[in-house]
Amino acid sequence: MKARICSTSKSGSTLVLSQDKDIDLIELEQLLESVGWTRRPIKLVRCALEHSLFKVGIWRHDRRIPRLLGFARCTGDGVIEATVWDVAVHPHYQGIGLGSALMKYVIDTLKVTGVERVNLFADPDVLNFYIQQGWELEPKNRRCAFCYSA
Amino acid sequence: MKARICSTSKSGSTLVLSQDKDIDLIELEQLLESVGWTRRPIKLVRCALEHSLFKVGIWRHDRRIPRLLGFARCTGDGVIEATVWDVAVHPHYQGIGLGSALMKYVIDTLKVTGVERVNLFADPDVLNFYIQQGWELEPKNRRCAFCYSA
Ligand SMILES: CC(C)(COP(=O)(O)OP(=O)(O)OC[C@H]1O[C@@H](n2cnc3c(N)ncnc32)[C@H](O)[C@@H]1OP(=O)(O)O)[C@@H](O)C(=O)NCCC(=O)NCCS
Ligand SMILES: CC(C)(COP(=O)(O)OP(=O)(O)OC[C@H]1O[C@@H](n2cnc3c(N)ncnc32)[C@H](O)[C@@H]1OP(=O)(O)O)[C@@H](O)C(=O)NCCC(=O)NCCS
Repeated sequence: MKARICSTSKSGSTLVLSQDKDIDLIELEQLLESVGWTRRPIKLVRCALEHSLFKVGIWRHDRRIPRLLGFARCTGDGVIEATVWDVAVHPHYQGIGLGSALMKYVIDTLKVTGVERVNLFADPDVLNFYIQQGWELEPKNRRCAFCYSA
Repeated sequence: MKARICSTSKSGSTLVLSQDKDIDLIELEQLLESVGWTRRPIKLVRCALEHSLFKVGIWRHDRRIPRLLGFARCTGDGVIEATVWDVAVHPHYQGIGLGSALMKYVIDTLKVTGVERVNLFADPDVLNFYIQQGWELEPKNRRCAFCYSA
């Protein structure tokens, strides 16, 4: 999938969605910290990103100081299962459609490669964000989520 | 992680757990079919296995006719997140500890590589199987599972 100009106009500047542009890992951790998540060691993040199916960023387009405003990545085998992680939009830019644009880009990318199922784990306070976009909440007589801290 | 002799003695023959032994994909799909799952195209399964972090099989040890009795695989980035899929033990060999041995092997393998979190989606009728082994059911004020059929 190509880079995509983000169609929201409310941000006041051009925004670009891309999975090819290099991610500055410190900028990424700052973004994830801005939504309240704990910073992770950069070495770990680098390795995790390298072993992801793909990663998507939203940047404010500026030749000199582009800025990362949103992020998501996918792991999985890419044909039967894909799992979405680290979905975040910078607080200053929330509520203007960037999160939906990000998720649409993720799903469209996975449709091109043809994966059968996409999964994710959502924080309870963002359930509606996913439900509005057609995601189905488990368990629906189907599957329950488990985790294990190794 | 090395191959492991399965310590259950109830099966009447030596059982070997290994992530290095080649998986016969037709045998794998027969195993998964035996627990009631729909067969998947072999090409897809091959690709999914190639893009998994690792896969574990349990075999009845027999130089001429080894037989695949159990299976599990993991996807993920291998450092921050890992996800377990396709956990199955052949119905004739259920209830003698193979499922637990399989999951222990998976967790031990992930501990060696040092992943932070392991996740899985369980069918509602096997919740206790995971809970007994120390897995925590989500949501626990934490995360809810979603799926999307692409
Ligand atoms: C969740 C998040 C990515 C949404 O991004 P966003 O750019 O604000 O989302 P959008 O503007 O595209 O919103 C799309 C729709 O979802 C709704 N929505 C957005 N955030 C929501 C939330 N936290 N809870 C419920 N609904 C939400 C919006 O109201 C909007 O609905 P509308 O189209 O009817 O107006 C962003 O709020 C965020 O980064 N949150 C913190 C990190 C986080 O929780 N990530 C998800 C982890 S699972
Ligand atoms: C789930 C499965 C892998 C368990 O394998 P197994 O070899 O029978 O499991 P074990 O013999 O190691 O059982 C370990 C413990 O879990 C319990 N357990 C096993 N299957 C269970 C089930 N379906 N529901 C609840 N508890 C179960 C056992 O009673 C045992 O408890 P005990 O130690 O107190 O006796 C196997 O039943 C299976 O393949 N089922 C069909 C496929 C499936 O549902 N896989 C999981 C998808 S999420």
